[in-house]
Amino acid sequence: MFKADLKSDTLKGLVNIISTLIDEVKFTIGPDGMTLKAVDAAHVAMIEMEVGKDAFESYEADSCEIGLDLDKVKGVLKLASSGDIVSMEQDDTHGRLVFKVGNITRRMNLVDTATMNDPKVPQLSLATSISLMVDELQKGIRAADTISDHITLRAGPDFFELSCEGDTDSVSLRLEGSSLLGIEAAEEVRSMFPLDYFQNITKAIPAGTAVTVELDSDYPVKLVFALADGAAKVRYLLAPRIESD
Amino acid sequence: MFKADLKSDTLKGLVNIISTLIDEVKFTIGPDGMTLKAVDAAHVAMIEMEVGKDAFESYEADSCEIGLDLDKVKGVLKLASSGDIVSMEQDDTHGRLVFKVGNITRRMNLVDTATMNDPKVPQLSLATSISLMVDELQKGIRAADTISDHITLRAGPDFFELSCEGDTDSVSLRLEGSSLLGIEAAEEVRSMFPLDYFQNITKAIPAGTAVTVELDSDYPVKLVFALADGAAKVRYLLAPRIESD
Amino acid sequence: MFKADLKSDTLKGLVNIISTLIDEVKFTIGPDGMTLKAVDAAHVAMIEMEVGKDAFESYEADSCEIGLDLDKVKGVLKLASSGDIVSMEQDDTHGRLVFKVGNITRRMNLVDTATMNDPKVPQLSLATSISLMVDELQKGIRAADTISDHITLRAGPDFFELSCEGDTDSVSLRLEGSSLLGIEAAEEVRSMFPLDYFQNITKAIPAGTAVTVELDSDYPVKLVFALADGAAKVRYLLAPRIESD
Repeated sequence: MFKADLKSDTLKGLVNIISTLIDEVKFTIGPDGMTLKAVDAAHVAMIEMEVGKDAFESYEADSCEIGLDLDKVKGVLKLASSGDIVSMEQDDTHGRLVFKVGNITRRMNLVDTATMNDPKVPQLSLATSISLMVDELQKGIRAADTISDHITLRAGPDFFELSCEGDTDSVSLRLEGSSLLGIEAAEEVRSMFPLDYFQNITKAIPAGTAVTVELDSDYPVKLVFALADGAAKVRYLLAPRIESD
Repeated sequence: MFKADLKSDTLKGLVNIISTLIDEVKFTIGPDGMTLKAVDAAHVAMIEMEVGKDAFESYEADSCEIGLDLDKVKGVLKLASSGDIVSMEQDDTHGRLVFKVGNITRRMNLVDTATMNDPKVPQLSLATSISLMVDELQKGIRAADTISDHITLRAGPDFFELSCEGDTDSVSLRLEGSSLLGIEAAEEVRSMFPLDYFQNITKAIPAGTAVTVELDSDYPVKLVFALADGAAKVRYLLAPRIESD
Repeated sequence: MFKADLKSDTLKGLVNIISTLIDEVKFTIGPDGMTLKAVDAAHVAMIEMEVGKDAFESYEADSCEIGLDLDKVKGVLKLASSGDIVSMEQDDTHGRLVFKVGNITRRMNLVDTATMNDPKVPQLSLATSISLMVDELQKGIRAADTISDHITLRAGPDFFELSCEGDTDSVSLRLEGSSLLGIEAAEEVRSMFPLDYFQNITKAIPAGTAVTVELDSDYPVKLVFALADGAAKVRYLLAPRIESD
């Protein structure tokens, strides 16, 4: 059994994040909320998401799994205005999830979750931690475009830098002081990442969201942030590209 | 002789409706206004339009026929801002219509109307009549998209429903009570229609327009509405698709 | 040595004008400002631009030449908001120009100017001179679209007219009286020009800019206008098309 109401904006925020990696998704549902673990087809990035029942306007559920096609959920979201409530209810008899938005009823076939295994999330302890508004990352990403397919993140005790090196041109965004919300770095670290992945996740995070970037040298980067006024927590892990010097 | 001024918004509203079916159109012009009957190339839908002289700011005409290429008229409309007056005058010597918008003069070749016969409009008496704002139809249409190529309209004594059934998914918009302006239905009726035609005409009707939907079982649907503050009357007829059960 | 700060809007205005003709450009830089002379690949149009040091927020330069790829400069402008200051400084060691916008640093390879010769600008004395807001030219251009590939400019003692003649259709914009800022014409003159060139330059001039059009019969047309509150002066010369009657 699963029956929940939530704001269309909340659902949209979650769907935007997940669909940077995958099209079909399995939610593991319990009485206190739902969780999701997903890895993209190329195994370059991974998302871990916890959505507490506080993220919902109303929430009632037993333990179950629900598989959804995110493109169809996006279709439902197009029918909702900002501020609308989206109701979801599992229809056990037909293996469907029934969405209601105002006087519209949308019955959606569920995706079979039998073959969708949860990826194993590596436990990483990364040397550096930087907190900043996602808007700064988005600015750095815009600057990086067209210079290179990679982006280098670098942090030291008092700065965080995004940079791109092309054959002839380069661009960098250096953040320090009040441009950062906080930084913990004993020494300088740097890693390089695929620009497209970093761009997609950065664009999907709503402007005005605080993000913690955990970084180390030639290690994955971890982005940690909250959605739905803190009721949904997201960890995003992106594998590094090895630099050829 | 034909010489008339009208608001660019009025002309735009009329052109938007007609161009859902055809590109070249014949207006039958008389001293008190103009009429149009048109059917699309596939003979699936038909428009009947009466534009009274009250729809115009000024109007002087003898009986005549004028054939227009609607894409060219749309080009003229792009030169006008909302609120601008468009003047039209037939130039008999050259077989042209002369449009004026501000200090722009656009001379447009007329389309030969000799081979453009008026379609015969069937007289239908349909069992059910529903009045509602076009905005509700537009909402139903948005929901139907991607589920199926057909839309089913259903009405009973106290409801009107738009629905789409795909192989696995479905969507419906049910309107009752204050969502409707009025309904006259003795018993339940339903018919299925091609989604693209229904979508095109529904999108072309300006938001905030009241529409009367006349419906019966496995009969064409008739949409009746007014433009230009009531001075232009439109009847749109769409043939049903036979459902294969 | 070259080091200058200027408003992003000013830089954008200059780049928009130049990039109607060419992608790579050579600026000739001196202590009091920079100049540019450029002709398009087909030798149909020519730009002459003088940007005085007053167009800049700060300006320090020795005599030198700087070759730039305008697409890259447009990329930098996308990182700046309206009102932002763009700093440029030549990096002699690496043959680069370093742009700074806020905390973003963009190092850009210079284009080799060795093979970029200044075109010889013809000295023309044209019979007629019309002053008007570019907005009127832009309106005429919109009307001309789809009728023909050419536009005819015509001026007499008390009018200026843009017109297009197609095989069957035509359009004209006639300006007189208060639609013009001024006109000096002894007798009627007319020339025909390629629509695409005239369209590109007209669209690139900011709305609200006063333009002087110098016109003669079967001669090039000259558009003279100022940018950056008068600190940048532009002369644009467009060759006529010979009319085949």
